[in-house]
Amino acid sequence: MSDDQKPPARPSRRGFLKAGGAAVAGLATTGVAQNALARTPTHADDPQLAVEPFFGTHQAGIVTAQQSHTYVAALDLNTDKRDDVIGLLRAWTDAAARLTQGQPAGSLDGPVDKPAPDSGDALGLGTSGLTITFGFGPGLFSHEGKDRYGIGQHRPAALVDLPRFNGDQLIAAKTGGDLFIQACANDPQVAFHAVRQLSRMGYGIVAMRWGQAGFLSGARNQTPRNLMGFKDGTNNPSIQKPQLMNQFVWANSSDAPWMNGGTYTVVRRIRITLEHWDNTEMDFQEQVFGRHKYSGAPIGKKNEFDPVDLDAADKDGNPVIPDNSHVRLSNQASNNGAQILRRSYSYNDGTNFYIERWPPWRQETEYDAGLIFIAHQGDPRTGFIPINEKLSKFDMMNQFTTHIGSAVFACPPGAQRGSYIGAGLFET
Amino acid sequence: MSDDQKPPARPSRRGFLKAGGAAVAGLATTGVAQNALARTPTHADDPQLAVEPFFGTHQAGIVTAQQSHTYVAALDLNTDKRDDVIGLLRAWTDAAARLTQGQPAGSLDGPVDKPAPDSGDALGLGTSGLTITFGFGPGLFSHEGKDRYGIGQHRPAALVDLPRFNGDQLIAAKTGGDLFIQACANDPQVAFHAVRQLSRMGYGIVAMRWGQAGFLSGARNQTPRNLMGFKDGTNNPSIQKPQLMNQFVWANSSDAPWMNGGTYTVVRRIRITLEHWDNTEMDFQEQVFGRHKYSGAPIGKKNEFDPVDLDAADKDGNPVIPDNSHVRLSNQASNNGAQILRRSYSYNDGTNFYIERWPPWRQETEYDAGLIFIAHQGDPRTGFIPINEKLSKFDMMNQFTTHIGSAVFACPPGAQRGSYIGAGLFET
Repeated sequence: MSDDQKPPARPSRRGFLKAGGAAVAGLATTGVAQNALARTPTHADDPQLAVEPFFGTHQAGIVTAQQSHTYVAALDLNTDKRDDVIGLLRAWTDAAARLTQGQPAGSLDGPVDKPAPDSGDALGLGTSGLTITFGFGPGLFSHEGKDRYGIGQHRPAALVDLPRFNGDQLIAAKTGGDLFIQACANDPQVAFHAVRQLSRMGYGIVAMRWGQAGFLSGARNQTPRNLMGFKDGTNNPSIQKPQLMNQFVWANSSDAPWMNGGTYTVVRRIRITLEHWDNTEMDFQEQVFGRHKYSGAPIGKKNEFDPVDLDAADKDGNPVIPDNSHVRLSNQASNNGAQILRRSYSYNDGTNFYIERWPPWRQETEYDAGLIFIAHQGDPRTGFIPINEKLSKFDMMNQFTTHIGSAVFACPPGAQRGSYIGAGLFET
Repeated sequence: MSDDQKPPARPSRRGFLKAGGAAVAGLATTGVAQNALARTPTHADDPQLAVEPFFGTHQAGIVTAQQSHTYVAALDLNTDKRDDVIGLLRAWTDAAARLTQGQPAGSLDGPVDKPAPDSGDALGLGTSGLTITFGFGPGLFSHEGKDRYGIGQHRPAALVDLPRFNGDQLIAAKTGGDLFIQACANDPQVAFHAVRQLSRMGYGIVAMRWGQAGFLSGARNQTPRNLMGFKDGTNNPSIQKPQLMNQFVWANSSDAPWMNGGTYTVVRRIRITLEHWDNTEMDFQEQVFGRHKYSGAPIGKKNEFDPVDLDAADKDGNPVIPDNSHVRLSNQASNNGAQILRRSYSYNDGTNFYIERWPPWRQETEYDAGLIFIAHQGDPRTGFIPINEKLSKFDMMNQFTTHIGSAVFACPPGAQRGSYIGAGLFET
């Protein structure tokens, strides 16, 4: 390649951003510079320009105000070498710190006769509030009965293998995983880009097990609605209240002190039969949820945040909020005070074609859409598991939903600058 | 249900918007009111609040500045009755006019013991620049040799059945369709919501054939990058130049005057082997495209919009832009002056698991991601077909891409208020 055919010098993703509108560039540059060392996020008015810190006491993406898109992925470890895992976690930590601050995963100035360390598809896009959250599945501690990395004794009791729940129709290729990456951002390409770079970095050591894109619309000003048209998350413990997060979300157990300040994350791919739901009577939909559809208020109440009165009865003495409604069964008062922090996304993977194998032998195309349910908690044994044991048996919603993917991960506390995610586990 | 258990009055989607922040509500209400009768779009600063007109000379969503999300779907007609089709198109026209202006598909004040006419998941979301574009596939005119609706003689010669192209690996469940709906919006839920309501309205008359969500990041300020990391659309004819749109995009043929002011739309689902692409040397990637990756400039040039010089040679006399590069083969100068208006989206449907059926018997999970290629043109016989005949045989990019879905539609001109989409065809 002759000199005059050389491409121009390669700007950083930050540089690309600067090349945009002046107002945009000003905000972004300031935001990046201020936040490189900061612990508190800058929420720019434009969600594309928001910057979240990577290093800190907790990992970001757990009690972070929910971004509009996610890409979640689970990977399996193919190595028996402890140092491979540590090396990968170090590399992931460095890359995640760069990516969340608007930098490419690796330098763009490398030789042109080699693959570039960044796919380039996020160049020119804003940081978009990107957070990257890592988690460890049971397979990190025990794989086919073997403790591959000498850390089996540090497996927290809270990192249980999830039981089979009533109605589970789990697909192996959508279930489990040794390592977890959750990238959330206010842009779908920024979220996917992050997982794609990190996944590539582990080539030969890890292999993708499953990946899934999700979205959440309308969370900026209100409780967002899921694809069933109901507000989802009204009864979440408030991320504005650190004492609630300490009580319900952050791990704090003496058997695995390396996890303190981390959380346990359950992911479920829940397919929803939208065609069936859409043809269901409005009042029955409201009975299923136990809430009014448009206002989000508990049945019998006026406003979304009115308290759920499980004791209310109509004039015949029947409960106003049905016994098998979702809001009753999942309510804190029905679960010994347990709460989990739901941070779910809708998914929409187009359509698939099916043929019934029995009369009337219908052939139809249906939506492959639903909910990537994501819930964080201090201990799944007192959080998701007992709550879902109840829901899976009694929830009226089950006739519209099928759990087809499932995973549980220990998401360690945040990394300190110079250290890496999971250092507390491997350096114990 | 006793009086005090009745839900509050049901506000319109506009009403929900008003209930948000004051500034937001002000903008939105003004936008909706002004645009209900207007022909020119209002581009609010916030993409969530943009409103596009539905009625007009042309359908929206063709030369409209590209929104950040789409949901495209094809449906098959199950009826032999011409009046069923006309009734559906009338109902779709009315609903699309409502949806694009921020209203639900039908009144939310209906009886609670019936399914509601709107799934409610877009309540509270902004209009998001929603456009809805309808198209007619070959099956509307001829189905298994039969002219079901007495309109066979009005089939335009330009609405050809696409030939098989070299390398095509088409899946029936992602290919074809009698009717086409393209919903584009700056929000994924708003786009999907539109198709979902319209699809429901045709229950018993039409059945979903395929549906596909897509996204496009970064188009607000620049030429967006696709998942391969290259800028996509640099050489598009400018939507700012009506004479180019008349020349290349809008149909104008004497054999089917009802299509004048419409366009022919080709949709291809192109899967990209991202894992392979990411491990490809940077300079080879640039040879494949014929452009520099970071700047978007043609090889040998400095800036994205520098003209593509197909005659440039290096000191050995070899072409600077390779003979089998994408930019050369698709260039206007290589195609008798033909141009098409590409308005594509990336797609990202998670991952799928495959097992090789031959040595070395690998089992792997790979991305199911790529491009929903969408191209508009006045006549596919001089547009997409000859261009893709060439690309499918010679384009270096083919080793990274596979066309697995395909469809072609005649998208009629826009409807006038009081009329319906396709009236020119059925009322001829």
